[in-house]
Amino acid sequence: MNVLNESAILAVRNKQKEITNDDMREAIEKVMLGPSLKSKVVTEEQKKITAYHEAGHAICSTVLPKAQKVQKITIVPRGKAAGYTFNVDDESGSMVRTKSQFLSEITVLFGGYTVEDKIFGEVSTGASNDLAKATEIARNMVTKYGMSSLGAISLEESSMSYKDVSGTTTYGVDLGNKIDDQVRKILATCQQNCQQIILGYRKNLDDIANCLIEDEVLEYEKYNTITDIVKNTYLPKF
Amino acid sequence: MNVLNESAILAVRNKQKEITNDDMREAIEKVMLGPSLKSKVVTEEQKKITAYHEAGHAICSTVLPKAQKVQKITIVPRGKAAGYTFNVDDESGSMVRTKSQFLSEITVLFGGYTVEDKIFGEVSTGASNDLAKATEIARNMVTKYGMSSLGAISLEESSMSYKDVSGTTTYGVDLGNKIDDQVRKILATCQQNCQQIILGYRKNLDDIANCLIEDEVLEYEKYNTITDIVKNTYLPKF
Amino acid sequence: MNVLNESAILAVRNKQKEITNDDMREAIEKVMLGPSLKSKVVTEEQKKITAYHEAGHAICSTVLPKAQKVQKITIVPRGKAAGYTFNVDDESGSMVRTKSQFLSEITVLFGGYTVEDKIFGEVSTGASNDLAKATEIARNMVTKYGMSSLGAISLEESSMSYKDVSGTTTYGVDLGNKIDDQVRKILATCQQNCQQIILGYRKNLDDIANCLIEDEVLEYEKYNTITDIVKNTYLPKF
Amino acid sequence: MNVLNESAILAVRNKQKEITNDDMREAIEKVMLGPSLKSKVVTEEQKKITAYHEAGHAICSTVLPKAQKVQKITIVPRGKAAGYTFNVDDESGSMVRTKSQFLSEITVLFGGYTVEDKIFGEVSTGASNDLAKATEIARNMVTKYGMSSLGAISLEESSMSYKDVSGTTTYGVDLGNKIDDQVRKILATCQQNCQQIILGYRKNLDDIANCLIEDEVLEYEKYNTITDIVKNTYLPKF
Amino acid sequence: MNVLNESAILAVRNKQKEITNDDMREAIEKVMLGPSLKSKVVTEEQKKITAYHEAGHAICSTVLPKAQKVQKITIVPRGKAAGYTFNVDDESGSMVRTKSQFLSEITVLFGGYTVEDKIFGEVSTGASNDLAKATEIARNMVTKYGMSSLGAISLEESSMSYKDVSGTTTYGVDLGNKIDDQVRKILATCQQNCQQIILGYRKNLDDIANCLIEDEVLEYEKYNTITDIVKNTYLPKF
Amino acid sequence: MNVLNESAILAVRNKQKEITNDDMREAIEKVMLGPSLKSKVVTEEQKKITAYHEAGHAICSTVLPKAQKVQKITIVPRGKAAGYTFNVDDESGSMVRTKSQFLSEITVLFGGYTVEDKIFGEVSTGASNDLAKATEIARNMVTKYGMSSLGAISLEESSMSYKDVSGTTTYGVDLGNKIDDQVRKILATCQQNCQQIILGYRKNLDDIANCLIEDEVLEYEKYNTITDIVKNTYLPKF
Repeated sequence: MNVLNESAILAVRNKQKEITNDDMREAIEKVMLGPSLKSKVVTEEQKKITAYHEAGHAICSTVLPKAQKVQKITIVPRGKAAGYTFNVDDESGSMVRTKSQFLSEITVLFGGYTVEDKIFGEVSTGASNDLAKATEIARNMVTKYGMSSLGAISLEESSMSYKDVSGTTTYGVDLGNKIDDQVRKILATCQQNCQQIILGYRKNLDDIANCLIEDEVLEYEKYNTITDIVKNTYLPKF
Repeated sequence: MNVLNESAILAVRNKQKEITNDDMREAIEKVMLGPSLKSKVVTEEQKKITAYHEAGHAICSTVLPKAQKVQKITIVPRGKAAGYTFNVDDESGSMVRTKSQFLSEITVLFGGYTVEDKIFGEVSTGASNDLAKATEIARNMVTKYGMSSLGAISLEESSMSYKDVSGTTTYGVDLGNKIDDQVRKILATCQQNCQQIILGYRKNLDDIANCLIEDEVLEYEKYNTITDIVKNTYLPKF
Repeated sequence: MNVLNESAILAVRNKQKEITNDDMREAIEKVMLGPSLKSKVVTEEQKKITAYHEAGHAICSTVLPKAQKVQKITIVPRGKAAGYTFNVDDESGSMVRTKSQFLSEITVLFGGYTVEDKIFGEVSTGASNDLAKATEIARNMVTKYGMSSLGAISLEESSMSYKDVSGTTTYGVDLGNKIDDQVRKILATCQQNCQQIILGYRKNLDDIANCLIEDEVLEYEKYNTITDIVKNTYLPKF
Repeated sequence: MNVLNESAILAVRNKQKEITNDDMREAIEKVMLGPSLKSKVVTEEQKKITAYHEAGHAICSTVLPKAQKVQKITIVPRGKAAGYTFNVDDESGSMVRTKSQFLSEITVLFGGYTVEDKIFGEVSTGASNDLAKATEIARNMVTKYGMSSLGAISLEESSMSYKDVSGTTTYGVDLGNKIDDQVRKILATCQQNCQQIILGYRKNLDDIANCLIEDEVLEYEKYNTITDIVKNTYLPKF
Repeated sequence: MNVLNESAILAVRNKQKEITNDDMREAIEKVMLGPSLKSKVVTEEQKKITAYHEAGHAICSTVLPKAQKVQKITIVPRGKAAGYTFNVDDESGSMVRTKSQFLSEITVLFGGYTVEDKIFGEVSTGASNDLAKATEIARNMVTKYGMSSLGAISLEESSMSYKDVSGTTTYGVDLGNKIDDQVRKILATCQQNCQQIILGYRKNLDDIANCLIEDEVLEYEKYNTITDIVKNTYLPKF
Repeated sequence: MNVLNESAILAVRNKQKEITNDDMREAIEKVMLGPSLKSKVVTEEQKKITAYHEAGHAICSTVLPKAQKVQKITIVPRGKAAGYTFNVDDESGSMVRTKSQFLSEITVLFGGYTVEDKIFGEVSTGASNDLAKATEIARNMVTKYGMSSLGAISLEESSMSYKDVSGTTTYGVDLGNKIDDQVRKILATCQQNCQQIILGYRKNLDDIANCLIEDEVLEYEKYNTITDIVKNTYLPKF
């Protein structure tokens, strides 16, 4: 209920009689990322990198058929985040996720890292959360969901009886190495796909980034007009 | 006694004077899987995948001589499950389980995963519990029951004295690798058998799935009329 | 004193004035294995497998010179056990056990597993306790008693000072592998001896099993008349 | 607020009416490193080594484009430190750090160690904190930030779900070795860069060290006049 | 003071006015090994094996120049011990022990095991304490005292700072294997020396054993007359 | 303040009016090593070995340029020590230690072990503390101070963030082996240097040992007259 409380507080503060959609959006961001740091001084160079970083996530989301839709992009710093891209699922009611959804999700997560690497020439610490999430998804694909060439096997479900009492997994040295190989192969494939997207859709990337540099916030209505012609056009290589 | 309580509550709610078999069935499902989510909106595509996933488990149960009999299939979502297939043992009083029963059980567990993989082209997270159970059975076959080519040996019984005080198993690196090899060999064999069943009994699979898509629930009386001619017809390769 | 209590209760229940030997035997079984499950419905096939399983243990005990003597065999289910064979030591006062006694003991433990494997074509979970005990004995032979080709060495005595504070054994990877190799070699040798006994004394095995199927219980007086001519006739290969 | 308290105490002790910049500087050093040990007897040789050690850090900071600026150098012993070089970031408001900033930071940390090794012929324990910090940065580059040839992967973020309950990382033996190889490669590259700087800017190093030997403290105003012509002149090899 | 108490109790029980040497000897044994089990029924075969087992320890002690002197041998069962050989040091005041003393001690500990193996054809559990002590000595020689070809190094002293907080030793896999190799080499050398002694001094071994079978206890006065001509005659091979 | 207390007690006991230097020396030894065991009976052979053992430490200290100066040698047993050599640093005020000081320290620690090995033909347990200290120093050189061919790296500082929560170091198997190799290489080099010193300065060693056998205690005034011509004459090989 934090979001509703925050929305009400914003409405009161703005002397409105009703909670508007804008109040709700602002409240959601505040609860997720922390208070806005609009007063924080950001250099032009930093602002540009952040805009391209978020544009990298967004363009991947848009061109990949199985990725989530972009809802809003912001480069106003909040809490520890220099910027943020909000996504929503097409099929919000689904109880399961598929292999291609996971691969798309990893590719989208690599969007910021790849932009820094390929457009600006070196990566920063700003992508560490993205890498952590991407690696976790890739590892779960291999060890929980049978989505790698190790086949239908489950290796880390904590409730399984083949864990010893100290909680250490009991698979051997060779299988441990094979798991890592598969995780790295998934990550490398998604990183390559991401690079093709970033380089292949450079013009669209520039459009999104420039718009962000100017306005700092990009709602889905405007974002969709910028990226309308490129939706679901990339054929990922798996 | 939860099941009896639930049955009584259902009977009262339906203004019946006695608990019927239908009350009992409904009560069992509720206790095992959680409350029915009939109101949950499910897309046609999701409904179709769930129907085929459950049909995959069911057809394997039916054609494998040592597998359990299908009692009921449902694709009404309950708790975290999109669907469920209930089985019963032929020889319910048996104090032991045999190697071929375990191999059949693993093959049945792979039914949903294989249908997703071979009929729909990619697997989802919906099979993760099945993979966890299958892997646990395969591991126990190797390390507790002497049912692999490692022969008559026991490696993980927690009460055995050759575990050190920290509870870590003390078998060496080489034997750890051999255990994993055997577990993976068992799983790969069962996965291949499962693929042969899914592809070889495609028509029956379609019949079961279509019936489920139409009715959402399939009791054993009707299920048996659909699958009567294929019972115990698959010769598994071990 | 549980056994004495149980014997007294049985005597009272049977309106006897004294505790008889039968009361004592019944009481011992109840304390060791749990209450009798005579009312439990067992199929003919299950009864036959249990009878042969126990007969497998018994015939090994009888033909191996260093094994314990058979005291009583029962296939009346008790607690978790489908059947049980009671043995007694020839030299009950001995303070030590020898290598050949351990090898005989392991071979006897493999009797049930081997009967299932060689006579009925596949093993069941019913031998898991036997495998656990056999593996523990084999491991102790290698790591505590210097009874393998690793020679006179002790590797797991918990009171020894070369264990570190976390209780983890400190032998290296190579020696860990060698220990496992020796344990597996001991188990494989005993399994082969056991197979030779089961196949070589098939007629006696049938006699014991048939008698058990008919009477369900076989006391040593009758057992000895059945197996009298085969005592201590097998020359184990070490 | 310790720094403000200390500044106030110093001002009072010096019978000033206001807290001066000098009070602040002294207070910051005291809180960071411990009380001044001006009375401690230091041999001429020790003083010379400390001066060159700190000059090594400083010259690296100055010639590397991405390194922090030198604020103050002192060879008055404080707490456990024989000397100290204070740095400040150019872009103090930045929320992220880049790969080249990390590599510069490691190179600066190696400044003291390399001076001891290359100018005085052998290293001392005085560089142990520098080595610890450098190794930690290099490890984070490989395992948190995707800044090595292992690519975009995250391996040690403690909040990630692929850690087991005992907190042990679950990557395998091979990947563990590869991580170490990358960490060592980063450290070796920075050490080589550092050696080129120390040997290539020997005259400037001597100037800084001699000034320190004479004055014991070098504020940035004077430091900048000494090193003005060499700023950002070294092209690091990555 | 337990020994003195026990001696006094024995003197009182025997209605003596003073504590005699015999009271003291009896008291020492009781405190070390537990109460005498003279009433325990022991078969002739068991008695013979125990006598030869203890004679094996004793003859090694006698022919090895650096071993301790035999003080008393007994084959009266006490506590868990079937027999026991008491030794005393020649140089009781020494603050240190040498490599050749350790090698002699291990060889003496192997005396019982080797007699069982070479004279009776198979080993028993009776030597497990001897093996544990011998292995501990050998391990300490390698890891604490620099007495192996690994040279002057110390690897397991618990108070050393290079142990991590969990108490696990931090030497690597290769060094762990090398330690085990050295331990096994020391044990194998001592086992070979022991076999040469047992087979080379067979007649003396028989004399000691026969005397023990007859008298059950052998004090050093009588023991020395039996073994007088063989003292310190074996040249161990290191 | 224990030392002052002890000095005062000694002065009072000796009916002196002031605490003398001798009281101080005696007090220091008592606090460090435990009470004097002058009454302890020591054989001539033991006394000779102890004298040479301590002379081994002392001669290494004297001929190595970077080693500490000998202050006093004693072979009067105290606590657990059969003898002891007291050293003092030349540069007592130094806040750091160098690589050559560490190598000298290890070589001095090996003095006793090497004398036992090369002069008396076998080592004893008397050097175990020396080996433990030497190994710890060598390990710290490799893992904390960058003083091995592994280069500038830090691997065991407990406060570093790249340790996981269980405190286990996270370097891999290969690096673990390389650390051990470097530690052993440092120890082997120092052991060889020590052997050259012991054999090359045999006459001086005999002089020191003979003086100790006669007087039991050797203060630095007399020690310096004996060893005056050999000071700092050995050129160690690193």
